[in-house]
Amino acid sequence: MHNPQLNSNGELQHLLTIEGLPKSIINHILDTASSFVGISDREVKKVPLMRGKSVFNLFFENSTRTRTTFEIASKRLSADVINLNIAASSTTKGESLLDTIDNLSAMHADMFVVRHSQSGAPYLIAKHLNESKQHHVHVVNAGDGRHAHPTQGLLDMYTIRHYKRDFTNLRVAIVGDILHSRVARSDIHALTTLGVPEVRAIGPHTLLPGGLEQMGVRVFTDMEEGLKDVDVIIMLRLQNERMSGALLPSAGEYFKSYGLTPERLALARPDAIVMHPGPINRGVEIDSKVADGKQAVILPQVTFGIAVRMAVMSILAGSHA
Amino acid sequence: MHNPQLNSNGELQHLLTIEGLPKSIINHILDTASSFVGISDREVKKVPLMRGKSVFNLFFENSTRTRTTFEIASKRLSADVINLNIAASSTTKGESLLDTIDNLSAMHADMFVVRHSQSGAPYLIAKHLNESKQHHVHVVNAGDGRHAHPTQGLLDMYTIRHYKRDFTNLRVAIVGDILHSRVARSDIHALTTLGVPEVRAIGPHTLLPGGLEQMGVRVFTDMEEGLKDVDVIIMLRLQNERMSGALLPSAGEYFKSYGLTPERLALARPDAIVMHPGPINRGVEIDSKVADGKQAVILPQVTFGIAVRMAVMSILAGSHA
Amino acid sequence: MHNPQLNSNGELQHLLTIEGLPKSIINHILDTASSFVGISDREVKKVPLMRGKSVFNLFFENSTRTRTTFEIASKRLSADVINLNIAASSTTKGESLLDTIDNLSAMHADMFVVRHSQSGAPYLIAKHLNESKQHHVHVVNAGDGRHAHPTQGLLDMYTIRHYKRDFTNLRVAIVGDILHSRVARSDIHALTTLGVPEVRAIGPHTLLPGGLEQMGVRVFTDMEEGLKDVDVIIMLRLQNERMSGALLPSAGEYFKSYGLTPERLALARPDAIVMHPGPINRGVEIDSKVADGKQAVILPQVTFGIAVRMAVMSILAGSHA
Repeated sequence: MHNPQLNSNGELQHLLTIEGLPKSIINHILDTASSFVGISDREVKKVPLMRGKSVFNLFFENSTRTRTTFEIASKRLSADVINLNIAASSTTKGESLLDTIDNLSAMHADMFVVRHSQSGAPYLIAKHLNESKQHHVHVVNAGDGRHAHPTQGLLDMYTIRHYKRDFTNLRVAIVGDILHSRVARSDIHALTTLGVPEVRAIGPHTLLPGGLEQMGVRVFTDMEEGLKDVDVIIMLRLQNERMSGALLPSAGEYFKSYGLTPERLALARPDAIVMHPGPINRGVEIDSKVADGKQAVILPQVTFGIAVRMAVMSILAGSHA
Repeated sequence: MHNPQLNSNGELQHLLTIEGLPKSIINHILDTASSFVGISDREVKKVPLMRGKSVFNLFFENSTRTRTTFEIASKRLSADVINLNIAASSTTKGESLLDTIDNLSAMHADMFVVRHSQSGAPYLIAKHLNESKQHHVHVVNAGDGRHAHPTQGLLDMYTIRHYKRDFTNLRVAIVGDILHSRVARSDIHALTTLGVPEVRAIGPHTLLPGGLEQMGVRVFTDMEEGLKDVDVIIMLRLQNERMSGALLPSAGEYFKSYGLTPERLALARPDAIVMHPGPINRGVEIDSKVADGKQAVILPQVTFGIAVRMAVMSILAGSHA
Repeated sequence: MHNPQLNSNGELQHLLTIEGLPKSIINHILDTASSFVGISDREVKKVPLMRGKSVFNLFFENSTRTRTTFEIASKRLSADVINLNIAASSTTKGESLLDTIDNLSAMHADMFVVRHSQSGAPYLIAKHLNESKQHHVHVVNAGDGRHAHPTQGLLDMYTIRHYKRDFTNLRVAIVGDILHSRVARSDIHALTTLGVPEVRAIGPHTLLPGGLEQMGVRVFTDMEEGLKDVDVIIMLRLQNERMSGALLPSAGEYFKSYGLTPERLALARPDAIVMHPGPINRGVEIDSKVADGKQAVILPQVTFGIAVRMAVMSILAGSHA
């Protein structure tokens, strides 16, 4: 099937997932982001690339943090932003998702930033827009169910490239709840596409999905073993709601086995960087000494995240089907 | 009594209701809207007509859809928009409605877009502003109780004019819950003022208000009879909350008698257009085959609605008492 | 200890409290506000002083009225505004306050407008930003617990200066629930700093805090006595939630003893002005005849409040540590 996120010229029409995204497009996004990093340091942090464009933040699932990053990115591109908390709006009046989309599109929307608890919702919207020839509207997936969170994956790649320059000689470990993480999925696809030779997944059996080996990932249940000589450590957030269930004993037990302490960090390469998508749980998946230490690049990730979102949005806004 | 929505020069000072609005003003709004329809198609969808003006969306009743249309219209006119969900604010601290208005007016508001569940609230606010000589603030009624929804009425007129050009040879049918519909009220006034020779109301006895005949409306309880040879069909939304009461048997029963199917649509003129204020209830008041069919102009109504709201706001902002 | 709201050059780096603020800085704010009062009357009410700056309204406690004034002030300075209702966001995911701050700061925030139910929260944030050398971010206290509400204090001073010109020959009475009022605290500090020779506090024993005399305030429990010959009356809002407790008998009883009636107002100087931070409780702390009378300057306070907030924000945005 045709990749619904590319137009007939192979340009990015929507950003739905990193899966299947050509390396050239990922690099184009990272290069464009690089030009935006400087803008946020200037006195006037705005460029007119999306002046007069209407961006709709369609958050079917609440996420203040992610919504904020897209809102800032939009405003720094001079777009007009409309925040819609869809739970409170007409979908509750029984209107279907696609009727809502058609209505907003008829208001001459230029972009939908979609967050949804159901995997595939942004894909469904993009497919509908493509099929009904509403090519003026672009979709950005801001997180759908357990499936994908591509801008987080891209900002992770930006961060790794910033600190390590070359992907082709790296060992990268992803640690924690791989099973429920859309970040892990997006990262694995991106790392593989960009030529990282060794991607590792570390976590307890209960939080490791099947099929990792087929994706070329080395699996470890012993953290000390998994961290040995890695260049990059991507810690995942442990969702509190998992802790009450049968999957995990307790936050304290988890930290004992999989918490990133200075001692464990010392097993990695001396110049290894520590990443985390945030918000961090201090003392659950990461020790404060590591989170606030010299190898942590968690706050630079946030800064780069704005630039990466500006890059994605401006590239989409400039593409025509 | 003096019409509170006109200033002493007979210009539009507030938009409260279509009732009593001179034909010349309605036409002026439609003509102005026409100039804005093109703007939404441009790369940069903004005009500086309200730059530096402060528009307050005062929604005492939640309506994401209507709020969004006014927010977009304001931003495309370059106004600053402040959304106030008044239920959550100081009126709950016991402050009176008019004290809230005076406070916002003292912040140099330029326009209040008011949505209220009580009929007459926008009228009360406009009257207070007029009497206290706060002529710099303009009120737009965005729907009050069962009373009026004038911008919806105006966008309906814009849509009819767009497709039919001339009002003076039309048969227009309004179908459904006329009793509870502010849209129906606004439409009947507008159609009559613009010279439509035959306006029909179609619905069950329980949903037809008294007094329609005195307004010059022909009343039908049989849908087939009422649709015969009409040029325009305006379907109304069936409020779910009516269905549980004694007024209506069930959604299925309603559809059987008053749902717009392809077969019923065939009774109208072959070039008849089908309108609906949205959001539509598929299978309740309208069949999907009609809603998605060639005669439906429901999505163009949404597009024209932005232009009509831009027209109303820019005309008000340019008027001085 | 070093005053955390001033930078090493003695310029305003944050606005946390009027306590300890030098008279020269207060006067600079009032003078700057004066230049903004005119702007709100112009056709285009915007100046580009904060174009491209990102202002975050961090409201840990809901206050639509205060949030609105800062939102308007920001937009009239051409800043980009992001409203964060923090109760609904990641602090509920267990992230600490200072981690949230570091994250937003990493997005290149320029200013945090902070409202918090806990006294000292804005101070904590400012101290953290100073210590971690994040000097590009400025904090404005928009009300913290019972502690301070400095922009309200400053707009009160602006109002008094506007009507009375000279502070050094005034008698000012503050009436009501002094104990729970952050406005009263801010006002007392400002009045004293600006050289007002006589500040009076009027209220029932149960609502008067200890230590007023040490601050140079004359205390009255008899309202008639306290109002005699004053030039300025600052009424405080009676919080409804106080009324149910043991501190106060009832709203009616309170009005009998401390409500500002025309008769009581006549005891003050004939040109005395009546102020109130709003929203007013008509018939509880103030009679409608007074609130709507010629000596009331309650609505001008609101107007001046926008200019004062614009002044504070533009001064902070222009300061560099």
